[in-house]
Amino acid sequence: MAQKKMILDLDTGIDDALALAYAIADPAVDLIGIISSYGNCLVETSGENSLKLLELLGQTDVPVFLGESHSSTTDSFEVMEISQLIHGKNGIGEVELPIAKRPIESQSGVDFLIEAAHKYNDDLILIPTGPMTNLDAAIAKDPEVANLIGNITFMGGALTVPGNVTPFTEANIHQDPEAADRVFRSPAQMTMVGLDVTLRTLLTKKETQQWRDLGTEAGRVFADIVDFYIDAYYNLDIDKNGCALHDPLAVGVSINPSFVNTIDLNMQVTYDDVDYGRTIGDKARLNDPTTNMKAAVGVDADAYLVYFMELLNGLFAK
Amino acid sequence: MAQKKMILDLDTGIDDALALAYAIADPAVDLIGIISSYGNCLVETSGENSLKLLELLGQTDVPVFLGESHSSTTDSFEVMEISQLIHGKNGIGEVELPIAKRPIESQSGVDFLIEAAHKYNDDLILIPTGPMTNLDAAIAKDPEVANLIGNITFMGGALTVPGNVTPFTEANIHQDPEAADRVFRSPAQMTMVGLDVTLRTLLTKKETQQWRDLGTEAGRVFADIVDFYIDAYYNLDIDKNGCALHDPLAVGVSINPSFVNTIDLNMQVTYDDVDYGRTIGDKARLNDPTTNMKAAVGVDADAYLVYFMELLNGLFAK
Repeated sequence: MAQKKMILDLDTGIDDALALAYAIADPAVDLIGIISSYGNCLVETSGENSLKLLELLGQTDVPVFLGESHSSTTDSFEVMEISQLIHGKNGIGEVELPIAKRPIESQSGVDFLIEAAHKYNDDLILIPTGPMTNLDAAIAKDPEVANLIGNITFMGGALTVPGNVTPFTEANIHQDPEAADRVFRSPAQMTMVGLDVTLRTLLTKKETQQWRDLGTEAGRVFADIVDFYIDAYYNLDIDKNGCALHDPLAVGVSINPSFVNTIDLNMQVTYDDVDYGRTIGDKARLNDPTTNMKAAVGVDADAYLVYFMELLNGLFAK
Repeated sequence: MAQKKMILDLDTGIDDALALAYAIADPAVDLIGIISSYGNCLVETSGENSLKLLELLGQTDVPVFLGESHSSTTDSFEVMEISQLIHGKNGIGEVELPIAKRPIESQSGVDFLIEAAHKYNDDLILIPTGPMTNLDAAIAKDPEVANLIGNITFMGGALTVPGNVTPFTEANIHQDPEAADRVFRSPAQMTMVGLDVTLRTLLTKKETQQWRDLGTEAGRVFADIVDFYIDAYYNLDIDKNGCALHDPLAVGVSINPSFVNTIDLNMQVTYDDVDYGRTIGDKARLNDPTTNMKAAVGVDADAYLVYFMELLNGLFAK
């Protein structure tokens, strides 16, 4: 099987760190670049975290680009207090990593995405795990991008379950609902990996202990980072049974769609008032003959977790 | 194939009238009784409408019972103005039918349901097309009812699309969200036929003209009633392309589940504030090993409409 070119659009972030590790570990993936986003932390912090993690994992050939620093409807961005509690002030669970030797690329993340879309089109997988701001900006600058990218699988939204910021909105979509709405209404074909399925794939300290037991630096660092996340889930009463594998599930689904079952739907993001950031079927396009969203509504959590651990144990053992 | 015993719980109502006709026409159904509910009209009007329609269709052996006259959290009920605009003040599109010769049964609808649940259990299909008040009251009086009824397929709710009363709630659930929430959390196995699918099964005047062309009283009356509904959909800008076959779709799905595809989910109805009457996944039961709701999220509208017209053309031709 030929490797697929993949771009991760991360607001790194603990589960983003797991998505990064998963993409590196999966032999089906050729990770050609990481675009940074704001969200779990500032865009610069996100970029630095990605560089540090790549260095930790010996992947110094993967370039990191800066995306937009704030939403399409604001002039600046401040990290929400809840994000800091969940991911730590530094985004990676207060774990200190050496400053990366490599710098952020000088090309913008948006331009890198546009270039890659034209170069690889059907062979390109894009995984947004934060706000949709970068993809929206790329489509605004070059509308053809919406048609070119072969596979867009994003972590975000909540269709059949309540949100995690309000009962109606999930955190990534909440950062820039208008950008997400434009992307949803574009010709782009997408798969949504939302809270519907990510809240069903839980990781526990039993698994992070396996990484710790490997006796490697990567295993120890990832165990420390993820234990912070598991503790936050426990202490904030998000889930007492473990932490959700939000972002790495999107990477997994992009390569192995059979991990989830999906429904075909044309969706919108509402942002009027109380429905701010709600991902929901677009009534105006309900009876259209075609749909552009596959929304994941069920997951084979056991099968995914087995594969996730196989990949990450292998990666951290090196 | 042995016929299935069916009870319709109707707030009759134009699409309820179509559900009644469909149940009579389908050879797989033995309609053993109709329970009246409040909703599209007052419970007494609903009962009278069902009696009149049964008489029009020559079904004078189907008993009609009165259910609860108001929600579980109120002391009385007034018909909403929008309901009167959609269904007419008399519930059946201002079409005048002769007063029924038969009276409403003296047994209460709730007691009839409890009795039938014990008598027929697995062979019983219950189709609530209005509020869940009657089923909730039956379960409150005899909790065993939740386990006994073989098939509960209801029209109500909106999971993947916006509601029709507010963006969050559908009209039937909106009437008594607390009753619906109790039923959803009960052991009852249910199939939800909500706006997700009913807004995709549209009837037009092309079809009602077929009934009119039959030259029968039943064909003319149903064409007049449903044309009122199609006009209301047009004038109120609910849908310019036809009227939704809400309630008869629930009857169809109960007998032929393959008309829809469903997802398995444990659901709740929220009723705090802005989320009043929202049908949504229950986060507390998201990772339970079993589920009690099959929510319809896709429909083969063409196949359903063909069968619907075959049944109703045959019935109205008699």
